[in-house]
Amino acid sequence: MSLQLYVLRINEGREPSPFVWRARLALRHKGLDYERVPIGYGEKDRLGPSGQGLVPVLVDAGRWIHDSWAIACHLEDAWPDRPSLFGGEAGRGAALFVNRWADVEMLGALRLLLWPPTWDHIPIADQPYFKADRETKASMTLDAMREDADGKIARFRRTMEPARQTIQRQRFLGGERPGYADFAVLGGFLWARSISELRLIERDDPLHRWRADVLASVGDFPLGEPGHAL
Amino acid sequence: MSLQLYVLRINEGREPSPFVWRARLALRHKGLDYERVPIGYGEKDRLGPSGQGLVPVLVDAGRWIHDSWAIACHLEDAWPDRPSLFGGEAGRGAALFVNRWADVEMLGALRLLLWPPTWDHIPIADQPYFKADRETKASMTLDAMREDADGKIARFRRTMEPARQTIQRQRFLGGERPGYADFAVLGGFLWARSISELRLIERDDPLHRWRADVLASVGDFPLGEPGHAL
Repeated sequence: MSLQLYVLRINEGREPSPFVWRARLALRHKGLDYERVPIGYGEKDRLGPSGQGLVPVLVDAGRWIHDSWAIACHLEDAWPDRPSLFGGEAGRGAALFVNRWADVEMLGALRLLLWPPTWDHIPIADQPYFKADRETKASMTLDAMREDADGKIARFRRTMEPARQTIQRQRFLGGERPGYADFAVLGGFLWARSISELRLIERDDPLHRWRADVLASVGDFPLGEPGHAL
Repeated sequence: MSLQLYVLRINEGREPSPFVWRARLALRHKGLDYERVPIGYGEKDRLGPSGQGLVPVLVDAGRWIHDSWAIACHLEDAWPDRPSLFGGEAGRGAALFVNRWADVEMLGALRLLLWPPTWDHIPIADQPYFKADRETKASMTLDAMREDADGKIARFRRTMEPARQTIQRQRFLGGERPGYADFAVLGGFLWARSISELRLIERDDPLHRWRADVLASVGDFPLGEPGHAL
């Protein structure tokens, strides 16, 4: 086996990166086995050959690939005979838009909700770095982020409206088949599941049906334990 | 010729509906000729056979089709040998997401900016209806909407970030070829052009290059005169 996926190691096997979840879902969709390589927050020099310090990093037979979108494109191009992540070039092009929307809008709405409980679950030795980094990015303390969770959840639900309207007209975000557009969005939900008990969407939200369908499409995908009900 | 497109008639041939612009761009991309049928705000009963009262409505050999997305799908399915609007089923699926994002987020950010100057350009007889309808939808008077245009433009530019990031990695929103994802977004800009001199994006915004490329792809597309510089 030649594939390795570098991820961050936190407590109890939890997985706090929506970008790592995207890569794991893409690998699963392609039916590819790989070795998961957890590294600590203080061991990012181990990602050196990728030329940067962020997970996920995929190593394919000595080639280092970073950035979850680049990893998805590599998997699609290197295994064209496996189930497609994009359904062709136009599907790939428009999936990039969904991916960027998820980065900017969805994760933008989630980060103030999820950074505090992520901090709760990372190793004590890594907490000072995480706290300083995230508080700088948000211009706000972790304690301040914990306030008004209900308002933040309401904002998140409004942010999801383009996705909600899309899956009310078709089964998945990219049409009738599951693919990377779905995984790009599901990654945020799996981050939440891994470190919090927040109910981001209600059972009667059309996105609840969509989320179950995407998870079903990847079979008995390991969601990471412990984790909370979706 | 059997295609007719029902649109709203306002002053001087201006075209204030982003949804009509989408349909016009899609027809142009397909290379289809059609008759434009302008109706007044008070003549919506002429759309009766479509079962609703909103433009655009396409009539294709006696069949009435409403909703700009449905019109695009009809054109794609009825003229499969003409240049594709979606580039296949996965492209169509993901283009629906871009379309919904444009409806909710982009047009949501534009409407308070553009409803007042639209009102300035519609026939006097239609102004009371338009004013009452839009003020109810916005819970705000047209005069109040005119305030803080700079703040609204700044918000609009932030809203466009997922599109901006996408076309920094590929030429068009759906990949390397222009298509309906682009038209769904361009429609908002052409609405703005038709009734205002607002500079929605600066020349150094990457979206400026994208917009010129989309317009170039449809050749000497009639932008409607009078209209303002994009």
